[in-house]
Amino acid sequence: MSVRVAVIGAGIMGADHARIVAQDIGGAVLQVVCDASRDRAKSVADECGALDVSTDPRDVIRRDDVDAILVASPDETHASLCLASIDAGKPVLCEKPLSQSPEECRSVVDAEVSRGIRTVQLGFMRRFDPSYQAMCAALNGGRVGRPLIMHNCHRSVRVPANFTGQMSITNAAPHEFDVIRSILGTDYKAITVFQPSSSDASTTGAFVFMVLETTSGQLASIEVHNNASYGYDIRGELVGDEGSVSLSAPVDARYNSGLSSFERYPEDWRLRFSEAYRLQNKAFVDFVRTGRPSAIAASAWDGYYATVVAQAALRGLSERVRVEIETPSKPTLYQ
Amino acid sequence: MSVRVAVIGAGIMGADHARIVAQDIGGAVLQVVCDASRDRAKSVADECGALDVSTDPRDVIRRDDVDAILVASPDETHASLCLASIDAGKPVLCEKPLSQSPEECRSVVDAEVSRGIRTVQLGFMRRFDPSYQAMCAALNGGRVGRPLIMHNCHRSVRVPANFTGQMSITNAAPHEFDVIRSILGTDYKAITVFQPSSSDASTTGAFVFMVLETTSGQLASIEVHNNASYGYDIRGELVGDEGSVSLSAPVDARYNSGLSSFERYPEDWRLRFSEAYRLQNKAFVDFVRTGRPSAIAASAWDGYYATVVAQAALRGLSERVRVEIETPSKPTLYQ
Amino acid sequence: MSVRVAVIGAGIMGADHARIVAQDIGGAVLQVVCDASRDRAKSVADECGALDVSTDPRDVIRRDDVDAILVASPDETHASLCLASIDAGKPVLCEKPLSQSPEECRSVVDAEVSRGIRTVQLGFMRRFDPSYQAMCAALNGGRVGRPLIMHNCHRSVRVPANFTGQMSITNAAPHEFDVIRSILGTDYKAITVFQPSSSDASTTGAFVFMVLETTSGQLASIEVHNNASYGYDIRGELVGDEGSVSLSAPVDARYNSGLSSFERYPEDWRLRFSEAYRLQNKAFVDFVRTGRPSAIAASAWDGYYATVVAQAALRGLSERVRVEIETPSKPTLYQ
Amino acid sequence: MSVRVAVIGAGIMGADHARIVAQDIGGAVLQVVCDASRDRAKSVADECGALDVSTDPRDVIRRDDVDAILVASPDETHASLCLASIDAGKPVLCEKPLSQSPEECRSVVDAEVSRGIRTVQLGFMRRFDPSYQAMCAALNGGRVGRPLIMHNCHRSVRVPANFTGQMSITNAAPHEFDVIRSILGTDYKAITVFQPSSSDASTTGAFVFMVLETTSGQLASIEVHNNASYGYDIRGELVGDEGSVSLSAPVDARYNSGLSSFERYPEDWRLRFSEAYRLQNKAFVDFVRTGRPSAIAASAWDGYYATVVAQAALRGLSERVRVEIETPSKPTLYQ
Repeated sequence: MSVRVAVIGAGIMGADHARIVAQDIGGAVLQVVCDASRDRAKSVADECGALDVSTDPRDVIRRDDVDAILVASPDETHASLCLASIDAGKPVLCEKPLSQSPEECRSVVDAEVSRGIRTVQLGFMRRFDPSYQAMCAALNGGRVGRPLIMHNCHRSVRVPANFTGQMSITNAAPHEFDVIRSILGTDYKAITVFQPSSSDASTTGAFVFMVLETTSGQLASIEVHNNASYGYDIRGELVGDEGSVSLSAPVDARYNSGLSSFERYPEDWRLRFSEAYRLQNKAFVDFVRTGRPSAIAASAWDGYYATVVAQAALRGLSERVRVEIETPSKPTLYQ
Repeated sequence: MSVRVAVIGAGIMGADHARIVAQDIGGAVLQVVCDASRDRAKSVADECGALDVSTDPRDVIRRDDVDAILVASPDETHASLCLASIDAGKPVLCEKPLSQSPEECRSVVDAEVSRGIRTVQLGFMRRFDPSYQAMCAALNGGRVGRPLIMHNCHRSVRVPANFTGQMSITNAAPHEFDVIRSILGTDYKAITVFQPSSSDASTTGAFVFMVLETTSGQLASIEVHNNASYGYDIRGELVGDEGSVSLSAPVDARYNSGLSSFERYPEDWRLRFSEAYRLQNKAFVDFVRTGRPSAIAASAWDGYYATVVAQAALRGLSERVRVEIETPSKPTLYQ
Repeated sequence: MSVRVAVIGAGIMGADHARIVAQDIGGAVLQVVCDASRDRAKSVADECGALDVSTDPRDVIRRDDVDAILVASPDETHASLCLASIDAGKPVLCEKPLSQSPEECRSVVDAEVSRGIRTVQLGFMRRFDPSYQAMCAALNGGRVGRPLIMHNCHRSVRVPANFTGQMSITNAAPHEFDVIRSILGTDYKAITVFQPSSSDASTTGAFVFMVLETTSGQLASIEVHNNASYGYDIRGELVGDEGSVSLSAPVDARYNSGLSSFERYPEDWRLRFSEAYRLQNKAFVDFVRTGRPSAIAASAWDGYYATVVAQAALRGLSERVRVEIETPSKPTLYQ
Repeated sequence: MSVRVAVIGAGIMGADHARIVAQDIGGAVLQVVCDASRDRAKSVADECGALDVSTDPRDVIRRDDVDAILVASPDETHASLCLASIDAGKPVLCEKPLSQSPEECRSVVDAEVSRGIRTVQLGFMRRFDPSYQAMCAALNGGRVGRPLIMHNCHRSVRVPANFTGQMSITNAAPHEFDVIRSILGTDYKAITVFQPSSSDASTTGAFVFMVLETTSGQLASIEVHNNASYGYDIRGELVGDEGSVSLSAPVDARYNSGLSSFERYPEDWRLRFSEAYRLQNKAFVDFVRTGRPSAIAASAWDGYYATVVAQAALRGLSERVRVEIETPSKPTLYQ
């Protein structure tokens, strides 16, 4: 039997998720598209051939003809929709962040723990990206030796002038906070945050550079540069004492013209991570069908942890000191 | 309603097709897996969750619960199974070659023409490969100017010692014969075939180098090197008077070790063209649903044409002369 | 003692050679710059700190204070200045071509042979290019196995509208005729020439594609594309049955901007081959000092051979047939 | 007239310098090779055709037939030999470091200042490397916009087990301390040093990661990884708000074999920076001839500054705090 999925939120991300569920994976049916705007829900539902639309997410979560929930609504609704899904006993794939409040994240974790069964898959899709997977395989295959540092760059074309370093930490960096930890299989001990003071605030406001120290003794650097201008460019290199491995982004063609040999950058994350999203959603459908959470996917705990790190980074940004990160004790459900 | 697909042939290619239909595209159901060996059919059906198995392809083609046929059985059965599908009025996606006999190809074309409706999609999956698509887009977008030559390399790791230049022409090169023609939007005027005479026959037997002249006046070079040893490597560069564009194969990671910086080649075509196969099969399901053949996909005519070119190349190989290619007149069904 | 060099010809190439002799190698002194235009000679001499200028090349060749001659004057003077240098018993580094007439080339060879000592080094500088040297080393080190084909592209930005395919063969291709033969250590058996007929004559006139068959049984392809527009781009790949090796041009930096990641092409050959010219001239100075010709450098014989091949190619271009190449018997002086 | 150069120190670096002076630049003569070991001096002198050898550097500096000094002797002798050269009024190209003691560096600066004329060129050869020069040109040409961060990696194959983080800072990092400052045209405000604590001390001891803040408000990251194992690999990327530019190391060829496409790393710095050394020494000879110091080259002041930064970094390493850097006031001689 096909898994009947309800997509909540029909914005850019929700429309992408609906399309993937309907067209790019097997064994799933796009049952409902739900959005505060019925027109927007209808437009996505029509494009993807969804069976129904709704404007009431809580009603959708409870419907008998819905097996699983995919939350792509505004950030501040994520935690409560996860709680409703846990309450209804229905697997939920929730876009990041789980919440920007560690306490709210914790309430989702607690609800899941008290129910005693994994229900939430968090949308840190990078874990499914073939290039991060190749990095994992290289590390586990011994091809880099013992890891010493992981370098990360997160560059996007342009953000509004009022975008701040705080936003770079809470919106962009959690992807790195999660994927570094996932690849190294460790937690964090401390974070130090730097910011250039040159040029004007509209540029440097959105730029932060962070150094993480892990509990296993490695380092990680993260540059978040939201006004990189030249393209959407995610980089990662894991460096050990026997070698290193770097992410390689999808490139379809190489061009020669005007005294240049060049490749094109995508304008945003969707093209860069399209296969990651597809594989993530496919793993979610498998999770729904089998009841076994994906070994790769992020959990509610991982969502909580990313938010804890972001809070420490915010303090590091404002106080300009090295901030120690208190790792909360992990419930057995997630071990 | 989902499209119910029967996969005929449960070898390597058939198993891949079954998996794609069942897991990697939406809107399709893997209804039957059919193979001369019931065990093989059953094994693939179980792995992919197919509803039924069969050992009788003609029966499968006629079944009421089957909407569309995917032919991945041995080459010599392709044409007759296409004819049976045309006869049953059911869309068929047929692996290449349509047939190695131009006459048999022609009989499929004639059957389709006399029925007056497009039924056959030929499995020249490279047309769907994102890198060839990017090459098309570059050409159509004016980024190479007027095309002058297209260079092609088709290298695979190793073939048995009895693999011949003839086989390189009939098995491997038709992919190039088709995709060059598709990208340039032209037919061929002549072909000249070269073969090295150095080293031993087991190596050079499988190596051919061909130069095609198109009816629009461009050139195309094709190296087929089936004992390339180092990896499966498909290259293409389209060169014009304003620039050039080259295919770029998927690369997930870049490694540093042992005084080298390196990327990995796949061992065969399946990893290189996995997305091409997925998009091809997705387009086929759309074709079944809408009745409109994909604008990208190859037709029975294209399958016929590739075989006509292969025949000319065989003559060029044995007689070592430039061979003129007589392009048959194209029925209106394919225009 | 320093080698006292006279540079004959103070055009672009002569000025470059003068600069290299004066500034970029040790053990040499730029003694005289000679040009039909005394102003041009003086300008180069002043820039490089030459000791004297002249307008009479034959006088320069005979001067007691000149140990060696570097010929960079117009093509049609090369052979006679080589003959004069041989006559004077002075080593000469002569820019390519030795002559476009095989008979005239032969007269230089004969003069050198009858004197019984190697005097002429021909300016096929690519043999000294580190990338061609790396290709040689890979072949000799067994890293490509037995060679089957060598692919070559010779692309330059733009030539005048009256530049013809003939000129592409006589001006540009001799570099490839020489370097392929040098790397493979073989002579040629036949050549087949192709030309696109598409687009307008001003573009396609300067475009030729050639396939060479060697006496050792390998193939070589050469694309000469003198209106490539996008940059000066010389490529070579040597392909064997165990691997392949490709030339890599010098690249100083990689840039990101405007949704592109790019490297720059040089506008012409001088930047691409600057180190090759330097190493070639350094080897020439060593030759003068030691009397032992460089093992890498091209001889008068190699210059003669390149012209023989060009003549065959010209016939292949006009008659559009495969042309057999008669390899003349090589005097022992060159063995 | 040729510049007569004395090379002091005939170890690896001294031998390289002697060879460059004798063979790879014009206008210079290798007059003396001096080493504490006469045998070693003689061996290098013979190989390069030097006119004389010596074991007494101070005598060499005073000789009438010596115009300029090239110091490549052990580190602890650099400052005093520079002082002797200043005293003798002879231009000196001194290998880095000027001294590991800021006070000793300062004494050289003071001597030069009190003589009122620039005499010392410091061997920070990277400034002459074509890739760093291309980075400068990109910055000055506005191609990266306003610079925000410069990333640097300094990786070498292997160091002895007793090599420490201190040595990584004093031996390796000064190249980065100098070249970052040279490219950005700024001084430093603070440095923070990190070190992984994972794996064993023999590996991590030689690994340091540093973040510099410049007085103009940019950031710079430096990874020094002396047990990188995979190759000698120097990287740099300058990132601005309009684009970025990365160094590209010389690569002669690209190889395919064993399911890999790869390029080779050099084993150490000499091959990577051979052209930088040549251009540096050529600039030094020009300086001797013209009396005008190279605009690119590092001065005694730059050598002093690099040592000041290294001292701050050492404190940062031992105390694990952000260390502010006091920039001494620069004498007018260096402005």
